[in-house]
Amino acid sequence: MTEPWWSEPIRPPSAALAEAARTRQANLTKPPGSLGRLEALAVQLAAMQGRQRPRVEQVWIAVFAGDHGVVAEGVSAFPQAVTQQMLANFVAGGAAIAVLARELNATLEVVDVGSLAAEPMPGVVWDKAGFGSANLAQGAAMTEAAVVHALDAGRRSLRRAQAAGVELYVGGEMGIGNTTAAAALACALLGLSGCELAGPGTGLDAAGVARKAAVLDRALDRHADAGTPLEALRRLGGFEIAGLAGAYLACAQAGVPVLVDGFIASAAALAAVRLNPGLRDWLIFGHVSAEPGHARLLAALEAQPLLTLDMRLGEGSGAAVAVSLLRAACALHNGMATFAEAGVSGHS
Amino acid sequence: MTEPWWSEPIRPPSAALAEAARTRQANLTKPPGSLGRLEALAVQLAAMQGRQRPRVEQVWIAVFAGDHGVVAEGVSAFPQAVTQQMLANFVAGGAAIAVLARELNATLEVVDVGSLAAEPMPGVVWDKAGFGSANLAQGAAMTEAAVVHALDAGRRSLRRAQAAGVELYVGGEMGIGNTTAAAALACALLGLSGCELAGPGTGLDAAGVARKAAVLDRALDRHADAGTPLEALRRLGGFEIAGLAGAYLACAQAGVPVLVDGFIASAAALAAVRLNPGLRDWLIFGHVSAEPGHARLLAALEAQPLLTLDMRLGEGSGAAVAVSLLRAACALHNGMATFAEAGVSGHS
Repeated sequence: MTEPWWSEPIRPPSAALAEAARTRQANLTKPPGSLGRLEALAVQLAAMQGRQRPRVEQVWIAVFAGDHGVVAEGVSAFPQAVTQQMLANFVAGGAAIAVLARELNATLEVVDVGSLAAEPMPGVVWDKAGFGSANLAQGAAMTEAAVVHALDAGRRSLRRAQAAGVELYVGGEMGIGNTTAAAALACALLGLSGCELAGPGTGLDAAGVARKAAVLDRALDRHADAGTPLEALRRLGGFEIAGLAGAYLACAQAGVPVLVDGFIASAAALAAVRLNPGLRDWLIFGHVSAEPGHARLLAALEAQPLLTLDMRLGEGSGAAVAVSLLRAACALHNGMATFAEAGVSGHS
Repeated sequence: MTEPWWSEPIRPPSAALAEAARTRQANLTKPPGSLGRLEALAVQLAAMQGRQRPRVEQVWIAVFAGDHGVVAEGVSAFPQAVTQQMLANFVAGGAAIAVLARELNATLEVVDVGSLAAEPMPGVVWDKAGFGSANLAQGAAMTEAAVVHALDAGRRSLRRAQAAGVELYVGGEMGIGNTTAAAALACALLGLSGCELAGPGTGLDAAGVARKAAVLDRALDRHADAGTPLEALRRLGGFEIAGLAGAYLACAQAGVPVLVDGFIASAAALAAVRLNPGLRDWLIFGHVSAEPGHARLLAALEAQPLLTLDMRLGEGSGAAVAVSLLRAACALHNGMATFAEAGVSGHS
């Protein structure tokens, strides 16, 4: 059998450019290290982009949408119809991620990879791997062909981003029920039980969270024999989660930095890193969500998120808010004077 | 004796506009509360600005500069000449805050309120309360006339900002030795000993920090009878610290939101809040610095900073990086669709 595309090698970011960037940081007119994580970000972006002067002006934000059969178990505070309603809201510009994309002068694309919508919607990329996943508590969420289609849809998104000159890729998601799928997938990959990652999502009360944990445990029990990361993704994930995973893997193979959003995006990132561990070096984590399981996912990925703002919206919104920190890091790295240029005395 | 201007009443932000903003947030197309602190920021800014739709496009960044006689005690890793060299670097655009101001399309003004520079420098506002403070370990840092001049200089900065239509005021500082002055002032106001707030500043080693703590204790002992916040500011502060305090107080009296920077700015804010407690409601805190004493100052001010990026540069840089979060909060508040507008179903 041929190796799938996502297993192909991922080259590491450039050590030489990281070193050059560190040297430049040491010569800028400030006490060494005083820009803290902004210095590390500039170094990281220079190494990823293979550039002396990193830049993240061309930001591509892709929101993948999917529906989830597991909502039949009563795991969401919002009705399933909201997935399709929000697709229209993304395109019309009224959703949070649409507002943030405008502010950032970023391109926003909405990819319907698996919602229940039967017909293409104007302004939405139609790349359907299916029409809502099956109920993961009763069987596999996706067929083998569908999970591959969803991973490919992620790669196709990155190809469009590359055609637009992408300098930073942000993935978002929309799908009523998808904190359940993300938790199921992450539990399977990390060997956790449902109560360790079940959270309120869009707004469950305590009884709802307990019900969700029980659904998760049932699903994990049913799919305990899912032996590979791909099989876990297929049985317990969802279309938009697989789309994100494919996009991340394609980014890393193409040398495009990724800014990861919250709980669902991080579950997709975790699955993708298990599919190809070289991906990890290409991921920057935008924020830690108020969804309680997110901190655990970040720890498993050894990730230090940039922001802690108690956000829990998804759509890529937390990552989008963090873009300005990356831009500040680049501007400082590229635009500050050195001690020699400014005639400023150094450390005594 | 006439009341000084900074004691005049400060009106609280509008409770009615805060309530209206909370109602709007509850109707935007997102799970309630899911934008976390960005929701609270939008509410806070609406209440401060007295507007249904808050905005922070017109940002005024004032960097106050002063020199410190206490550097004779060997409390800084950089030579005193750097204060004046950095003034030139601010004006030339090579300093961190100059780069960030450009990125934000903010106005940057540099106010020499007390450096050792004997002559006005092109592009720098010349509003001198003195030419370097006296050594606070051996006597009072400032005369009574000088501390009043510095407070007034802060108010004059706010007046210039108002003439430019300021929507958010950011204060920064430059002054070799000023973490020592800020620590001395804060220790006096909070009843702490030197080792509780002494830190590495621009880069002292452990022996340097210990020496700094001893200098602080000597100063605190000498000035133990400074009975009022104004007297503590005069004896233990510095020109740029008093300038910041005056600017903050004038902002609150004028109804202009303030975004506070790091350790030194927070010490100025603490002194200013002691001069007029109504100020506190007008302060938003941009970040927590890597300077260890900052977390303690923030706790004393019951402040929750927005960013934790291990920055410790001063100049207003941490606050400047946080401006984009305030802008995102306003954009989301003003630009998102409501459930009714978008035809999206609410919480079930």
